[in-house]
Amino acid sequence: MSLKEQILKIAKQAKQSSNKLALLSRETKDGVLKDMASNLEENKEAIIQANQKDLRLAKLKKYSQAIIDRLTLNDKRISQMADSLREVANLANPVGEVMRSWTMPNGLLIKKVRVPIGTVGIIYESRPDVTADCIGLCLKSGNSVILKGGSEALNSNLAIFKCLRDALIKHKIPEAAINLISTTDRKALDFLLRMDSFVDLIIPRGGEGLIRKVVKKSRIPVVKHYKGICHVYVDSDADLNMAENICLNAKVQRPGVCNAMESMLVHRDIAIRFLPGMIKKLQESSVEIRGCPVTRKIVKAKIKLATVKDYATEYLDLILSVKVVESLDAAIEHVNKYGTHHSDSIVTDDETSANEFLKRVDSACVYVNASTRFTDGNQFGMGAEIGISTDKIHARGPMALEELCSYKYQIYGSGQIRQ
Amino acid sequence: MSLKEQILKIAKQAKQSSNKLALLSRETKDGVLKDMASNLEENKEAIIQANQKDLRLAKLKKYSQAIIDRLTLNDKRISQMADSLREVANLANPVGEVMRSWTMPNGLLIKKVRVPIGTVGIIYESRPDVTADCIGLCLKSGNSVILKGGSEALNSNLAIFKCLRDALIKHKIPEAAINLISTTDRKALDFLLRMDSFVDLIIPRGGEGLIRKVVKKSRIPVVKHYKGICHVYVDSDADLNMAENICLNAKVQRPGVCNAMESMLVHRDIAIRFLPGMIKKLQESSVEIRGCPVTRKIVKAKIKLATVKDYATEYLDLILSVKVVESLDAAIEHVNKYGTHHSDSIVTDDETSANEFLKRVDSACVYVNASTRFTDGNQFGMGAEIGISTDKIHARGPMALEELCSYKYQIYGSGQIRQ
Repeated sequence: MSLKEQILKIAKQAKQSSNKLALLSRETKDGVLKDMASNLEENKEAIIQANQKDLRLAKLKKYSQAIIDRLTLNDKRISQMADSLREVANLANPVGEVMRSWTMPNGLLIKKVRVPIGTVGIIYESRPDVTADCIGLCLKSGNSVILKGGSEALNSNLAIFKCLRDALIKHKIPEAAINLISTTDRKALDFLLRMDSFVDLIIPRGGEGLIRKVVKKSRIPVVKHYKGICHVYVDSDADLNMAENICLNAKVQRPGVCNAMESMLVHRDIAIRFLPGMIKKLQESSVEIRGCPVTRKIVKAKIKLATVKDYATEYLDLILSVKVVESLDAAIEHVNKYGTHHSDSIVTDDETSANEFLKRVDSACVYVNASTRFTDGNQFGMGAEIGISTDKIHARGPMALEELCSYKYQIYGSGQIRQ
Repeated sequence: MSLKEQILKIAKQAKQSSNKLALLSRETKDGVLKDMASNLEENKEAIIQANQKDLRLAKLKKYSQAIIDRLTLNDKRISQMADSLREVANLANPVGEVMRSWTMPNGLLIKKVRVPIGTVGIIYESRPDVTADCIGLCLKSGNSVILKGGSEALNSNLAIFKCLRDALIKHKIPEAAINLISTTDRKALDFLLRMDSFVDLIIPRGGEGLIRKVVKKSRIPVVKHYKGICHVYVDSDADLNMAENICLNAKVQRPGVCNAMESMLVHRDIAIRFLPGMIKKLQESSVEIRGCPVTRKIVKAKIKLATVKDYATEYLDLILSVKVVESLDAAIEHVNKYGTHHSDSIVTDDETSANEFLKRVDSACVYVNASTRFTDGNQFGMGAEIGISTDKIHARGPMALEELCSYKYQIYGSGQIRQ
């Protein structure tokens, strides 16, 4: 069988089994999820051994420390994967929920009912825990899933996948409900992205290069989970103490994630009062500051000059660009120009300014007086998330079980015909 | 300026003006829509003259009568276009609606708010009235729009477009909010479909060839408005009188549209009682029947044999394929195999069968005891529609103002930081 035929077979079988998955009861799905969790814990040793293989290869290939960190599994990480599956089991079943219903004057009762999408393809890179997370969320939302992970994590992914598949088999659910493409041939992805008759949605999770490639090649709808160049704007009417806490949190609490602040904007009227103390605190937390000329003038300490490139960079690190702006308008313009429509916050006590910012900043999540770090399925009360969409089509912001669903209209008549 | 630069300029300006459109009040938008309607009526003569030019060329090029029908504008059709715009003005403003709001235990108030998508590209064929419909719906939903119509309708489209643009100018709304690509160079579409930095959604409306081409080439999310191979299944427990009315309506009331029945499935237990009378009535309405072997046996009149190709054909004409099925399961399987996930109906008095059909038929609209012809934005109470999505991503079924929107999360804090 050629590679293309192999991928076609996987896609076809996944689609077929999605019809059965869509009809599973909550009890069945939750039973499988709990068994998946137990299987992971019972097979920790095998998973860690497989992971060691990947790590040895990664070190041979001289991958960066960041990649090796993301790749590494240990006892604790495997327990976390299992716990995540159990949490998904505890979430409400999104499938079958009547989202809205109404009756037309002719007596037709129309129900808008949540249903699974069908088959979801997930393309990701080094993190093997994504394997369990995505399978859990897709199963609970009644979708079959095709995973294509990075080759650097293949052994780990296969070991995890085996544990999860065994739970499916135990519950007599079609094996083809979950699929892991195990070839390292790069063409496999190209073939998958053309299977629009069998795969309904592609979610790429990873770096900019991966996402661009997927968008370019895919005939299947893609919901992008892009980078986050997030801003906090400290307005002239800000409570400066609150602003300091929020900015510090947004930058340093976990700098390597997409909802961390990468750029701080400060209104010129409070810049002299705010910036010296703020920058000192950030520097005490090892943050490298790159400032606009006004910032550099105000802050006596020696800091680098921020370039246009800085404003357009997602550092994912303890680096921050700082810019003093003329006005609220200038702040909004800067955010819409350099941001990535992810998460942006204004700190202000002025309601009018807050509302302007909320309305005009074109981002998935816009905050008043809170840290951008809250953009997260759990923090929004959705339970686990499959990612954070920076797209405007289908789903925007944290994407969880409901966002892994579509809907259908069920219409109840008593013989109505169209006039 | 090269063609690519021209398209880029249009896309960029459309995106820029979308920020302003998103903030327009309902009053402003409705005022523009009403002036657009008046402009169309006041310029009927010029529009009809332009249309005559297109019709002369179409006849020279020997286009089919169906295309010429769709292309033809007259006094009445122009009035209908104007009335549609006034109806859109009467619809509620979808922008800014709080879809849901909730407070997290840490005090964060999260509002999910409906916002425009941004810039919508619409690719369509011969019908020039689509030009006004789409501009009206996009304006009301706060989106800028780029239209690429068929070259056969270019003069008509330009005449309509001028009337609509004049209303924009009168209200001092950026002209770039509405755009009509007026070149007939086919490469223009290819360039447009690559402008994913500026165009947020593509809606193709037209034949299968057009849609496949758009899906293949687009880097922008596409919501497909595909063909409708719609079924009515007459169950063993059907009220046969009701079934006759529904099938007749679904087939003959307007055979040329996507929600008309193309295939009738009949349970074997009632086939002998139901089919002879039903088929007679259909034939009296000039419907050509193509039947399965069992159907041909039951019906004494001479009818053609239905092939597999028939079951997979959208006739859009007074032709119907008929199949006798063994069971409800066989009917559901047939619909899911040969249908296009558009609209399908079961006629039955048995609640269990009805629920099975509703749950297991994987279509945008599934009916019990009603004609498939109701799949329509107006008939669903949504007001005007931009089309009927056969996709599962973003929007499914009739797509109107709400479906032309995305959402954002507005989060109100009082200094919350992430622990």
